[in-house]
Amino acid sequence: MKILYESDDVKLNNRALNYGDGLFETILVKETKIPLLKYHLARLCNGAKKLGMNFGKNDASELGLRISELANEHGSSIIKCILTRGAGGRGYRSLVDAEPEVYVQVFPSPSSMKVSLLREGVLLRECLIRLSCQPALAGLKHLNRLENVLARNEWHDDDVFEGLLLDTGGLIIEATQANIFFNIGSRWVTPDLSFSGVSGVLRGWLLDKSQELGVKTGVTTLSVDDLGKARGCFVCNSVNGIVPVRSISMSNGNEYKFQVDEAYALSNQVRSVMY
Amino acid sequence: MKILYESDDVKLNNRALNYGDGLFETILVKETKIPLLKYHLARLCNGAKKLGMNFGKNDASELGLRISELANEHGSSIIKCILTRGAGGRGYRSLVDAEPEVYVQVFPSPSSMKVSLLREGVLLRECLIRLSCQPALAGLKHLNRLENVLARNEWHDDDVFEGLLLDTGGLIIEATQANIFFNIGSRWVTPDLSFSGVSGVLRGWLLDKSQELGVKTGVTTLSVDDLGKARGCFVCNSVNGIVPVRSISMSNGNEYKFQVDEAYALSNQVRSVMY
Repeated sequence: MKILYESDDVKLNNRALNYGDGLFETILVKETKIPLLKYHLARLCNGAKKLGMNFGKNDASELGLRISELANEHGSSIIKCILTRGAGGRGYRSLVDAEPEVYVQVFPSPSSMKVSLLREGVLLRECLIRLSCQPALAGLKHLNRLENVLARNEWHDDDVFEGLLLDTGGLIIEATQANIFFNIGSRWVTPDLSFSGVSGVLRGWLLDKSQELGVKTGVTTLSVDDLGKARGCFVCNSVNGIVPVRSISMSNGNEYKFQVDEAYALSNQVRSVMY
Repeated sequence: MKILYESDDVKLNNRALNYGDGLFETILVKETKIPLLKYHLARLCNGAKKLGMNFGKNDASELGLRISELANEHGSSIIKCILTRGAGGRGYRSLVDAEPEVYVQVFPSPSSMKVSLLREGVLLRECLIRLSCQPALAGLKHLNRLENVLARNEWHDDDVFEGLLLDTGGLIIEATQANIFFNIGSRWVTPDLSFSGVSGVLRGWLLDKSQELGVKTGVTTLSVDDLGKARGCFVCNSVNGIVPVRSISMSNGNEYKFQVDEAYALSNQVRSVMY
C-alpha cells in the first residue's frame, strides 16, 4: 500500500478516475477523537476483499495509524481516504499484484447540525431514481456513485435535507448520503443492504451497541407500505450523527409524518456516548 | 467545456475520481480516418444529457474538431476522452453550472486482431457476476465500471477472449468490453440495452447500416435458452471490429458452439467498408 496526499500527483491512468475502481471513507475527527475509526477500517478491508484488492489487515492498521497521527495534528476535521487499485492493467482487467494507493485528504470540520433542526426534525423527499440491485457491490462504499449523484441532483430546495432512495424492486434502502432507521413496533429497524446501498459505519455501530444504548434495533426489508406503520424515523451517517426526520414527501403527493422525540433523544445520547 | 491533456494536473477533488461522475470514449484512428467519430460524439452528448452535464452539440463539435486534428497529427492510434463534471459541488450534489472537463489522451495503435483468430473464432466464457438493472444509466459509457472490472478479473486464461455478461434477471446483455450479436433465424440480433450494458458505437453503426451491408439485424431480449438457437455469434467494439465467436462456455459446464463463416465474412466486409 502506498499512502499519498493532496500534494501528490494524480495520474490520468489511475483506475479510480477511469473506472471508479476503488473505495472511500469520510472520517469525522472530533477534537482528536475518531470513535468510528475501527468501523471505517473494517469496511475498507471488507470492500477491498470483495473487489480483489491487495489491502489487508496490516495495511488497514498502518493506515489507521496515519489517520490517528493526522487527527492529533489537525484536531477536529474530516479525513477522507480514497483507496484505489492504482494505475495499470489492460482495460478493465487489473494487475493481479497491483499495489493499492490511498489518497488521504484533511478537510476543515463541517459546521455542526443546528440544534433547532435536530429538535424539529428534517424533511426528506422520495427520489425518482431507483437504486439497482447488485449483491457483489452492495454495502460497499465504492467509487461508483453515479446513482447517488443523480439522486442528490434531483432537488435544489435547501429545506429538503435528504432524499429517500428505493431500489428497483420498490424496497426502501437508504438516503442519498445516510442510512435510515424507522421506529416500528418497539424497534428501530433499518433496511437490509444485501442488494443495494452503503453499509454506513454509524448504522453498524448502532446495531452493535443497541443493548448498551437501551434500544432494540433490527435489520429487515421495508417497503413504502411500512412507512405508515413507523412512529419515528432518522437518517444517520458518521459526519452528522443521528438526524431525526419529521416528514417524508413521496412522489405521488403522499406525506408521512413522524414523531421526533425518541429520535432526538437517541441522537443526543449517541453524541454523549461517542465523544 | 475545458479540454485538457495528459500533461495537465488531475486534481484529487475531480468528480470522476471521487464518484465516477463522467463518461468516456475510446476512439480508434486508422491512418487518419475516424469512421465512428459521429457515433462517439453522439453517445457522449446523449450520456451528458442523461447525467445533467453541460455538454451540448457545440461542445461535441469542438471536441470532434480537436480529435480530428490529433488524428491528423498522430495517425493510427487510440484517442481516449474522459468527460468529467470537473471539481466542485458539495458531496454528491454537483454545481448546476459546472463546466465539464474533457481529458484527451493519445495511445499507440493496438496490434490488430490476428487473422487466424478471426478465422477460427474466439472463446467466450460466462461471467459469474450479473449486471444490475439501472435504466437511468443503461447504454451510457459512464465511468462507473466496477461491474466490468469484476467481470474481467474473473479469468486469467488468455485463451478466453471475452466474458459473457447476463443481467440479474438472467438475460444476455453483452461481453465485458464489447457488444454481442447472435445469428438466429435470418437475422443478427443483439440484446436490448434498456436496463443494462453499454450501447457500443459499432453496434449502433451495424444496426444503422444493415441494409447497406445486406444483412438483417434486430434488437431483442435474449435469454440463455436462445443460445441453443443461434447459428453464429460475434462480439464487436470500435477497436477490434467484429470478432467471430466459436464457442461459449457456461458456468454449469454447458458449451454452445457456433459456425464462424458468416461472422467472419461480415467482419471482413465491415472492415473494407469502414476503412
